[in-house]
Amino acid sequence: MSLTPPTVTDNRTTLVEGPAAGLLRQTSTSHIGLRVPDVPAAAAFYERVLGLVRHAELADGGARLGWGGGHHVVDLLPGDPGLDHIAFEVRDPGGLTGVEKRLRSAGLTVSALDESYLDSLDDTAGSAHGLVCTDPDGNTVQFHGPVRRPGEHAADTARRPVKYQHVTLSTADLVAMTDFYVGVVGFRISDQLADGGFAWLRSDSDHHTLAVVRTGRGGGLDHYSYDLAEWADFKSWCDRLTDDGVDVVWGPGRHGPGNNLFLFFDDPAGNHVELSAEMEKFHDDRVDYRPRLWEPVPRSVNLWGGQLANWRHTSEGS
Amino acid sequence: MSLTPPTVTDNRTTLVEGPAAGLLRQTSTSHIGLRVPDVPAAAAFYERVLGLVRHAELADGGARLGWGGGHHVVDLLPGDPGLDHIAFEVRDPGGLTGVEKRLRSAGLTVSALDESYLDSLDDTAGSAHGLVCTDPDGNTVQFHGPVRRPGEHAADTARRPVKYQHVTLSTADLVAMTDFYVGVVGFRISDQLADGGFAWLRSDSDHHTLAVVRTGRGGGLDHYSYDLAEWADFKSWCDRLTDDGVDVVWGPGRHGPGNNLFLFFDDPAGNHVELSAEMEKFHDDRVDYRPRLWEPVPRSVNLWGGQLANWRHTSEGS
Amino acid sequence: MSLTPPTVTDNRTTLVEGPAAGLLRQTSTSHIGLRVPDVPAAAAFYERVLGLVRHAELADGGARLGWGGGHHVVDLLPGDPGLDHIAFEVRDPGGLTGVEKRLRSAGLTVSALDESYLDSLDDTAGSAHGLVCTDPDGNTVQFHGPVRRPGEHAADTARRPVKYQHVTLSTADLVAMTDFYVGVVGFRISDQLADGGFAWLRSDSDHHTLAVVRTGRGGGLDHYSYDLAEWADFKSWCDRLTDDGVDVVWGPGRHGPGNNLFLFFDDPAGNHVELSAEMEKFHDDRVDYRPRLWEPVPRSVNLWGGQLANWRHTSEGS
Amino acid sequence: MSLTPPTVTDNRTTLVEGPAAGLLRQTSTSHIGLRVPDVPAAAAFYERVLGLVRHAELADGGARLGWGGGHHVVDLLPGDPGLDHIAFEVRDPGGLTGVEKRLRSAGLTVSALDESYLDSLDDTAGSAHGLVCTDPDGNTVQFHGPVRRPGEHAADTARRPVKYQHVTLSTADLVAMTDFYVGVVGFRISDQLADGGFAWLRSDSDHHTLAVVRTGRGGGLDHYSYDLAEWADFKSWCDRLTDDGVDVVWGPGRHGPGNNLFLFFDDPAGNHVELSAEMEKFHDDRVDYRPRLWEPVPRSVNLWGGQLANWRHTSEGS
Amino acid sequence: MSLTPPTVTDNRTTLVEGPAAGLLRQTSTSHIGLRVPDVPAAAAFYERVLGLVRHAELADGGARLGWGGGHHVVDLLPGDPGLDHIAFEVRDPGGLTGVEKRLRSAGLTVSALDESYLDSLDDTAGSAHGLVCTDPDGNTVQFHGPVRRPGEHAADTARRPVKYQHVTLSTADLVAMTDFYVGVVGFRISDQLADGGFAWLRSDSDHHTLAVVRTGRGGGLDHYSYDLAEWADFKSWCDRLTDDGVDVVWGPGRHGPGNNLFLFFDDPAGNHVELSAEMEKFHDDRVDYRPRLWEPVPRSVNLWGGQLANWRHTSEGS
Amino acid sequence: MSLTPPTVTDNRTTLVEGPAAGLLRQTSTSHIGLRVPDVPAAAAFYERVLGLVRHAELADGGARLGWGGGHHVVDLLPGDPGLDHIAFEVRDPGGLTGVEKRLRSAGLTVSALDESYLDSLDDTAGSAHGLVCTDPDGNTVQFHGPVRRPGEHAADTARRPVKYQHVTLSTADLVAMTDFYVGVVGFRISDQLADGGFAWLRSDSDHHTLAVVRTGRGGGLDHYSYDLAEWADFKSWCDRLTDDGVDVVWGPGRHGPGNNLFLFFDDPAGNHVELSAEMEKFHDDRVDYRPRLWEPVPRSVNLWGGQLANWRHTSEGS
Repeated sequence: MSLTPPTVTDNRTTLVEGPAAGLLRQTSTSHIGLRVPDVPAAAAFYERVLGLVRHAELADGGARLGWGGGHHVVDLLPGDPGLDHIAFEVRDPGGLTGVEKRLRSAGLTVSALDESYLDSLDDTAGSAHGLVCTDPDGNTVQFHGPVRRPGEHAADTARRPVKYQHVTLSTADLVAMTDFYVGVVGFRISDQLADGGFAWLRSDSDHHTLAVVRTGRGGGLDHYSYDLAEWADFKSWCDRLTDDGVDVVWGPGRHGPGNNLFLFFDDPAGNHVELSAEMEKFHDDRVDYRPRLWEPVPRSVNLWGGQLANWRHTSEGS
Repeated sequence: MSLTPPTVTDNRTTLVEGPAAGLLRQTSTSHIGLRVPDVPAAAAFYERVLGLVRHAELADGGARLGWGGGHHVVDLLPGDPGLDHIAFEVRDPGGLTGVEKRLRSAGLTVSALDESYLDSLDDTAGSAHGLVCTDPDGNTVQFHGPVRRPGEHAADTARRPVKYQHVTLSTADLVAMTDFYVGVVGFRISDQLADGGFAWLRSDSDHHTLAVVRTGRGGGLDHYSYDLAEWADFKSWCDRLTDDGVDVVWGPGRHGPGNNLFLFFDDPAGNHVELSAEMEKFHDDRVDYRPRLWEPVPRSVNLWGGQLANWRHTSEGS
Repeated sequence: MSLTPPTVTDNRTTLVEGPAAGLLRQTSTSHIGLRVPDVPAAAAFYERVLGLVRHAELADGGARLGWGGGHHVVDLLPGDPGLDHIAFEVRDPGGLTGVEKRLRSAGLTVSALDESYLDSLDDTAGSAHGLVCTDPDGNTVQFHGPVRRPGEHAADTARRPVKYQHVTLSTADLVAMTDFYVGVVGFRISDQLADGGFAWLRSDSDHHTLAVVRTGRGGGLDHYSYDLAEWADFKSWCDRLTDDGVDVVWGPGRHGPGNNLFLFFDDPAGNHVELSAEMEKFHDDRVDYRPRLWEPVPRSVNLWGGQLANWRHTSEGS
Repeated sequence: MSLTPPTVTDNRTTLVEGPAAGLLRQTSTSHIGLRVPDVPAAAAFYERVLGLVRHAELADGGARLGWGGGHHVVDLLPGDPGLDHIAFEVRDPGGLTGVEKRLRSAGLTVSALDESYLDSLDDTAGSAHGLVCTDPDGNTVQFHGPVRRPGEHAADTARRPVKYQHVTLSTADLVAMTDFYVGVVGFRISDQLADGGFAWLRSDSDHHTLAVVRTGRGGGLDHYSYDLAEWADFKSWCDRLTDDGVDVVWGPGRHGPGNNLFLFFDDPAGNHVELSAEMEKFHDDRVDYRPRLWEPVPRSVNLWGGQLANWRHTSEGS
Repeated sequence: MSLTPPTVTDNRTTLVEGPAAGLLRQTSTSHIGLRVPDVPAAAAFYERVLGLVRHAELADGGARLGWGGGHHVVDLLPGDPGLDHIAFEVRDPGGLTGVEKRLRSAGLTVSALDESYLDSLDDTAGSAHGLVCTDPDGNTVQFHGPVRRPGEHAADTARRPVKYQHVTLSTADLVAMTDFYVGVVGFRISDQLADGGFAWLRSDSDHHTLAVVRTGRGGGLDHYSYDLAEWADFKSWCDRLTDDGVDVVWGPGRHGPGNNLFLFFDDPAGNHVELSAEMEKFHDDRVDYRPRLWEPVPRSVNLWGGQLANWRHTSEGS
Repeated sequence: MSLTPPTVTDNRTTLVEGPAAGLLRQTSTSHIGLRVPDVPAAAAFYERVLGLVRHAELADGGARLGWGGGHHVVDLLPGDPGLDHIAFEVRDPGGLTGVEKRLRSAGLTVSALDESYLDSLDDTAGSAHGLVCTDPDGNTVQFHGPVRRPGEHAADTARRPVKYQHVTLSTADLVAMTDFYVGVVGFRISDQLADGGFAWLRSDSDHHTLAVVRTGRGGGLDHYSYDLAEWADFKSWCDRLTDDGVDVVWGPGRHGPGNNLFLFFDDPAGNHVELSAEMEKFHDDRVDYRPRLWEPVPRSVNLWGGQLANWRHTSEGS
């Protein structure tokens, strides 16, 4: 049962933004934990192809990688392929407390986040610095306070993305997921497909830091994305991926929702990795926005003619 | 009395899109007629500074300028400073007929456009190729069918804009003006200031091809705008304007509504001329948009900190 | 029977360059004639989308287009969709005479080219300025001397390609076609697919100005291509094609043979049009090259992962 | 009483370069110490907005920041807002000794610089590595030998300037200040305002590494400046400052003296921070220069039309 | 005998600016006449390599070329290789009258310029539109009023320069030449070599539009120069010159005086042609400049290490 | 006696690729050891001019430098100027074992590489991680397995190259050297001069990672090269080298073999250092290449007109 049932008319399923919508405005993706069958192979890929740096060895043979300074970005954990956790950095004043209160009010279980996840906290205040919970699809979601990332955002035309930018979750119940992330946690909906099959959610000035797509498979990752600095980088990345024997499987293209340039390739565990640039900015401090509805057609997710990836079989991809 | 009175709540004046909204989707600015006290001086300015080419001498000492090929862009007519006419090129199939029908249905006077205004019509079909009417502020507005502009869109980093892109009209009755341009002619509202003091209207994929701003002075021009190809051009233009002794009076900056980069300078008759790039695109064939409301503050019209031009004294500029 | 039968070993069909190979070194594509069902629609497309300029009206309702100055580029002729003729500009000293001599020695019929095709000849010498013949697939091929193209090569990031660069012919007998173009006319082979299904031929410093691909269909066009100035233009072109309602059907990508960046779209008559940049240069005055053999796999024709166009069903396109 | 009294004629006050002028040619800004009321807030700003990295905690709650490697750039010290010290790196052979000798000859007090300020000295020679004195306005000025800055100059289009480039001091006695910095220390005058209200001083190939402006307030900072790599960065910085809620208060523009592109914003303590690029280079090893005199008008300090910051109330800003 | 004899001290020969210095501030190069042994070959070179357009055939087999619109740029006249004339466009109000008066006062012969040289005059005022005289070396020099050049300044990364920018004359008596151009005509000296062997003269905001170099050979051309838009063009031009079989004989490099990027090649008649960009700007309306003296060493004329062209044997090139 | 004697016909000396040719496909330059008379001066140069970071002090006063993270790049060792060693990183699966086996089969002495050279090995497998041998000219050559270089490839327009890319060895017996590196070690020949005086060898997708040039002097370095990201960097590097008092001694230009842009300068020990970009890529997994033969003329090694460095006195430089 949905807190905020969508409005359904004709062929349209208009998602409704629940009560907490927009309470987070300075919150961004922080890090991601992936379970992979072969950690050394995956770590070598993220080091050599993505340009990440080994920050630490984790228990059981896992590997932690990042920008070479400040907070980490990716944990690679041994196991069957899957999503271990996602995490958001909440820089809104009082934001972490607010998230915790709303999660508890919604009857959800919230735990203190193990401090081992937080390697570059930007404040030294007492009490808990992070919290962890589970979303309706069973994904583990972490929220924590400001961290330092001095190595982030270094423009690198050849080897390293600018930042980890968004994660797109695969779901079988998109309304439940938006109820949670919008109605309780505090994201807003920037765009949706008009059939309710895809929703792009924002928590800072980027068009989306989180998206959910209805694939029929609940829980886990659809893809996740790193930012490049600009279009010029798309050529140097495609050429270098070719040098490294990595196939571009979708793009270069331009998404409708978010207006961002994109290309996709797969990591050795089969995770779809996106590189992105020019994402639309939202200025919630001076504009009143309402979610836009996009036709569920290929030319919505690829404005430049609608070419799709082979693995894309969701509502817009028919 | 308004066809589509705005919704007024608290401090908000939400404009309502009238019945014809969105019927024009392939319509753009075509040319503009300005009355200037000193035609030779103004013509020399448009030739040397803007890089326009003298296409023809007009009666009474007027001058017609354009890209050097195809349809003209600016008519300079002798007289007290003022706006002589604005004109739109309607490329929507059946669009010109539709506009004429709606204007007549609204009880407005429509005349056939004098063919002397149309120097590069793209079709040779019979009957009238253009029409002319008067908007609620008394501005003369022309609409005509497709024309050829082979010289347009040539990227020029040093001397010539890419195209004539939009016109912003000064008004004392913004609701009457949007009633006319949206409710009757067929534009849509992309953005408005939340106090109803400014509205940006679109007729193709550009965020706006026409805007209206409440200055208290009905009729005439607030400013008009040419496109540059990209940000890099802003430096070469500012440097060259300096060489030519022309002061930049506002910018470089970035507008909130339209997200476009901008700079402003004045022509010898005192018209404010904008140079613009990166305007937001709308994809009405695949998305359902609603007008956004921007706070009437300086940081809405200049996202980069709110610096304004001296001559900007409208609602957002307090 | 081939003049220069290929060497066949295992799975390899190595084309042999016939006696005239390399005699043309300053020869490039000049213009192309296409038969299209709806000339006005096609002409409007080439004007608005490709930025070509109407140079002349042709008999029977045809249209001739070009860069707005100098020699024309495209003739659009009324008729069932098809290739009317291709043409090359021979700037090699004595080159035109040599081509004629070799064609006649090979027993082929050569006629003087109707002067109406030559609108900007760069010399005023007497006698015939061009010749016309038929290639083994029955395509009409014109050769003519130097022409003026002052409007060519103007860099245009938004609206016009830099030049007409190559044509790729569809054939059922690739060996006969290379016998003709290499062994008799004087092109060289830059690259071939190792199964003999595709050959890229050069006549100046560009990797290819002509290619032949074995599709099973003899005669006519596979696609033809215009040059853009650089990678940055690919984004502005894709965005503008989207504005104009034209789908990109392949790319952006990078070809193996020629190393050129590419994207493809279709004109209203269904011709595949390529936009290209960064093509590999050959320096035959200071290097001795031999044709390279590429594996007939998708990742040869698209280095960046092998994505192909839907319409590509040739040997490399499994 | 001035060592080198200016030449005053009509409205012109021509500064005279004292005896040491030009003795420093390989000397640049090194670091700066600012007293700020809220160190954590200021440090967070310099980390997040300027992209500096926390190098060390200082006594009494101060914070030291830099490029993440090599010598530090900014010390933030608790206290009422003000300038704590400025520092120059003297790479001229024998330069440090020369500065010390000239300061002492001028009867000024010179102390050995506390080694705690020098965290990446590039040589290990014995004796004092730095010295400290007080300028005529009472500003603390440090000079030290070559240091390592491997993290400097990394081009970063999104998050970090290229280097700390110059400091502009506020003064009530501009002649006394130039007497000191030019006549004793060894800078040269590159440019001045013709009324003697502003002087730009160089110590290496940059047009200025130090400037002094007559504000009527003696001692302390007018503003200080970081280099960006190029004009393209100005857009990405303005956009990112907007994301971070920081207003651009002046620019983008281009200064006359130095010809450098600029923009200004304020740190949380109210210090004016400049971002700059394209500064004019001087080649004193092969050219003989004399200071240029600029009219004290707005269009001297902003070539592009003369727009000024609100806080600029000096002689040129009337 | 010199009007304004230079100051000679030690090894320095400081040129003195004569009475008319700086009276021209809006004057630029207009066109150039070259005598060449083979007009068709030279014309083909300027068409194909420089991208100029044939404007007219001249008497006796000469050819006039330009930007394809507006005033012409180059006249190629049959004859032994040599300079036929140089010409300047005087846009200073009253400037042409002033030049004539000063020439006559100096006792020089001045004639009305044959109107056939003026194909795009920008005004229609009566009386003479141009004048012609002879400089001390016997070079024919034309001055005329404002002309239209709508085709100028189109940025073209591949085929055409932006404008004709300066001419450098070869002389045996540099003082006489600067006496004439500075003391009588009204140029200013921007820079000189310290031995008096080279002087760069300005007449608008560009560092020089005319230069004179002491080669021992009086009269005629040392080289002349066209502007490119930016550094990126230097690569595309070098690559295209290679395609066209034209050797770059000097550069890319950066000049000290003028700070402009440069490269040189020769036309078929052996004239040295320069391509240039980023020339230093002078703002005489707001700054008081004095000529700078450069050491006569290779690293003055090529800041990047001093590599020189083989044909450069003047004072700095030892 | 050569394993694979070249084919000599007329003036052509065609090198023959020995049995191991092409067995290395994922092998690149790793680091280089140079003996220099003044280590502190050389280290300061590599720190300040090349932007390398001091990684470690070596015995006897040597210095080890690198990118600031991961494996080192340059060892500077005290001694008479000379090459101490070169090293390659072998990432081919089983590649290191294969190299060792082939070296031993060829009767060469192979030792385990001292682990002190390997500071960032990417695997922890047992047994030897590297090996060292001597090439026919007596150069010490190291091969080792994959290492981490997280700091490599960071694009830096101002201060640091992207990677160490190739080394060119000086030899008196070019056939013996190619026998060793191609026939035994496993490189391939990409290009050669037609007189056998220069050969460019590849071991990954770059046109060459190693070259050998016949200078008559066996053993030691001709030059070595770092990659820049793109052409735009050539201007900023030339300008900055000028700031640092370092002369560009050759270029900017474009090499024929490799097609790479280049410039050269010298380090304080007189080693020629190249900066390079746009090197041609080879796709050996999908193409069959044969070495190309270039004429031994200046315009082969500098496509843009043939200008050479003063120190280049090899076969092509006559």
